[in-house]
Amino acid sequence: MIAKSVLEKFKGIVGEQNYWDSPADLALYSFDSSVEKPAQPEVVVRPESTEQVAQICKLCNDNSIPLVTRGSGTNLAGGTIPVTGGCVLLMTKLNKILEINVKDMYAVVQAGVITADFAAAVLEKGLFYPPDPGSQKMSTLGGNVAENAGGLRGLKYGVTKDYVMGVTFCDMEGNIVKGGGKTVKLCTGYNLTGLMCQSEGTLGVMTEFVLKLVPPPKASKAMLVSFDSIMDAGNTVSGIITNHVLPCTLELMDNFTIKTVEEATGAGLPVDAAALLLIEVDGHPAQVEDDYQTVLKVCRENNGAVKVANTSEEKEKLWEGRRKSLSSLARLRPTLVLEDATVPRTKIPDILVALEEIRQKYNVTIGTFGHAGDGNLHPTFLCDKRDVEEMARVHKAVDELFAAALRLDGTCSGEHGIGIAKAKYMVDEVGEGTINYMKQIKKGIDAKNLLNPTKMGL
Amino acid sequence: MIAKSVLEKFKGIVGEQNYWDSPADLALYSFDSSVEKPAQPEVVVRPESTEQVAQICKLCNDNSIPLVTRGSGTNLAGGTIPVTGGCVLLMTKLNKILEINVKDMYAVVQAGVITADFAAAVLEKGLFYPPDPGSQKMSTLGGNVAENAGGLRGLKYGVTKDYVMGVTFCDMEGNIVKGGGKTVKLCTGYNLTGLMCQSEGTLGVMTEFVLKLVPPPKASKAMLVSFDSIMDAGNTVSGIITNHVLPCTLELMDNFTIKTVEEATGAGLPVDAAALLLIEVDGHPAQVEDDYQTVLKVCRENNGAVKVANTSEEKEKLWEGRRKSLSSLARLRPTLVLEDATVPRTKIPDILVALEEIRQKYNVTIGTFGHAGDGNLHPTFLCDKRDVEEMARVHKAVDELFAAALRLDGTCSGEHGIGIAKAKYMVDEVGEGTINYMKQIKKGIDAKNLLNPTKMGL
Repeated sequence: MIAKSVLEKFKGIVGEQNYWDSPADLALYSFDSSVEKPAQPEVVVRPESTEQVAQICKLCNDNSIPLVTRGSGTNLAGGTIPVTGGCVLLMTKLNKILEINVKDMYAVVQAGVITADFAAAVLEKGLFYPPDPGSQKMSTLGGNVAENAGGLRGLKYGVTKDYVMGVTFCDMEGNIVKGGGKTVKLCTGYNLTGLMCQSEGTLGVMTEFVLKLVPPPKASKAMLVSFDSIMDAGNTVSGIITNHVLPCTLELMDNFTIKTVEEATGAGLPVDAAALLLIEVDGHPAQVEDDYQTVLKVCRENNGAVKVANTSEEKEKLWEGRRKSLSSLARLRPTLVLEDATVPRTKIPDILVALEEIRQKYNVTIGTFGHAGDGNLHPTFLCDKRDVEEMARVHKAVDELFAAALRLDGTCSGEHGIGIAKAKYMVDEVGEGTINYMKQIKKGIDAKNLLNPTKMGL
Repeated sequence: MIAKSVLEKFKGIVGEQNYWDSPADLALYSFDSSVEKPAQPEVVVRPESTEQVAQICKLCNDNSIPLVTRGSGTNLAGGTIPVTGGCVLLMTKLNKILEINVKDMYAVVQAGVITADFAAAVLEKGLFYPPDPGSQKMSTLGGNVAENAGGLRGLKYGVTKDYVMGVTFCDMEGNIVKGGGKTVKLCTGYNLTGLMCQSEGTLGVMTEFVLKLVPPPKASKAMLVSFDSIMDAGNTVSGIITNHVLPCTLELMDNFTIKTVEEATGAGLPVDAAALLLIEVDGHPAQVEDDYQTVLKVCRENNGAVKVANTSEEKEKLWEGRRKSLSSLARLRPTLVLEDATVPRTKIPDILVALEEIRQKYNVTIGTFGHAGDGNLHPTFLCDKRDVEEMARVHKAVDELFAAALRLDGTCSGEHGIGIAKAKYMVDEVGEGTINYMKQIKKGIDAKNLLNPTKMGL
């Protein structure tokens, strides 16, 4: 319970208009996009500057108040739920693009900028910011960095951490800390930029980034390939990569997802296909043509029927179908458990086999789609969390899915992070020694364990 | 002073053949490739497995013995000098390439593998490992990761940290810790892979890596461009990038360096040129041709005379000249202070102006060459460390060089790291709050401060 005098201090820092403590307001910030159990904060504040953030950190530290940083709350692993109460710090007013440096190809942004808004602003200046998480229309750049968000372009262009050149954040003593900078090479002290990526709000409150930009591709070609067998689709993915083509997008949808999306959107997807691959190659026009020919050859070798998108409208329609996978699946049942177990790319066929076995064994409903080119599928379990018996089967199925991913040299989380949902799986992947090491880092930085406590099991 | 009984324990772990404590042997490991003051260890050991490394870590921790990990000792900032004595741990027997996975494009290697040997082995399998630090024929991959080594290809392909997918290391409690893995996307817990890159041996002893490989470029074109004015060369660098061409190599040599290299090697460099740029573009053949035309246009606009290397022998000869810059300069005077102040790429002309002012003001001899495309020049001060008055001028000149780099939004270290040499400059770049944060990480991980103590000022 935070003392009234301390609540007044919060209000003093951010002002009346950026302060909330009524039950209705607190309830709004008790959950995120995951299915994890909600928990209410005691106060919500919305700072307008790095300096205000630093003051809030210090106030929390001085009064032992848990501090949970929140962007748009699109987290899928419970990462923004204030499990132990305390203060939720909203980043939504730190939403300015401070600089887009076209000549040196970087941008300086505040953490609360919406991902898609930033990408559009960059494009307008003739440059390209590749990371495109599924939630990009809502998610903040700060959330993307804290979770090291992936997206559809990871295979060729990498993920969020590959674009963070510099970061400014506040520690719990109220210091302003600076990692990295504006140069493409930088080796001054610890790689704090690397450490903060994927730290899930547990090591500081990030307020500003220097993000790397790249020249946009000159040409691209998109195609939709349908298969009568999902294994053929899996083998196509691995065949494309071993032929040294790195598509900018290489997405898979299984039959269940195809049918569901088609019902929801009428996008014109082939509902009889066992699986679809959405493939886009980009780069120099001649490279695009060569890559396209290679992809075509591999698809045909694996019995795929290729349909090329001839206009950008056609392409957008195909992509829209893929982007609507999650929301379409969500219409079917009350609860949706979206996983992101990931394997080395050539092991996609193996994980598909494992998934089918798990589906049958536990009689669960799974729609599978995702970034096959990265080995990062999203098997999505459709269920009803009020049905205890069904949820028990789903949880066992998820346990086995992760075990299969680890057996195949994979990971429990390709891009969603650990949060609350996957904390228990971490030890199997990394071992006790690694967990202990992570705890030592956390303890060194945040001795009272106030920064997003319990997340990642820390 | 390490007790005799403890020395016996070291010997017991690694065996007689991997243990040294005679004064002559210890003297060998008292210095590295920097000009920093030597310091002797008390014992040198050469483990043959991760398990032996873990045992040595624990033994050092239990007996409060400083532990300095050493690959080939090519460090230029004093990073491998055992300043407070203790144990030097040689990684040279952990030198196996454990796996090159052609289909999933990664390799698993031990930390003591020589960089160039690894790159050659990868090439033999039809793949490409881009990082190419100047010391690649001697340096180890472990040293490259610990320092986040750069090289000639940083501009287009990134630096060492961009290729480390996973790391195995030992902490001081003797735990074996695992960061990252074999998947291209991975978000399980802290980004320990990112943290260990650039940690200069202060956070653990790294024994194994998973390294990312890429398809090799299909074509390339190299050229040598000579200028009558170094400013024209600087403007050409920035013109190429703003035209959205990212050469795989974009190197600069000033007149002093050109003349010195030519005298030493007779490589056929134009000794009257004020500056040279060595430029290589690579990729798809059509892209290479387009990029070449753009580079040609920019060079001509800036009064550059372009000579294309028509054969791989011609190219090798040009590159050999650049690679010999450091050794050629080293012949002129007894002491060589090689810096790596780095600025955003378009500020190359500004840092060149600053360097010339500094040279005149302190009457020092500077040969400048380096990775202009990254904004990462290597101004090299030629001097004699026995001449106190001259060294005072050199140190003042270096101070001003770093101040100029910071004024231009740059950094004190683009790729050599901090070590002993640059610890005092860090605070101006990152501020007290950041230094404090780094200290808290170090304290959390290595409470007794035994892992490469004093480095980075920690």
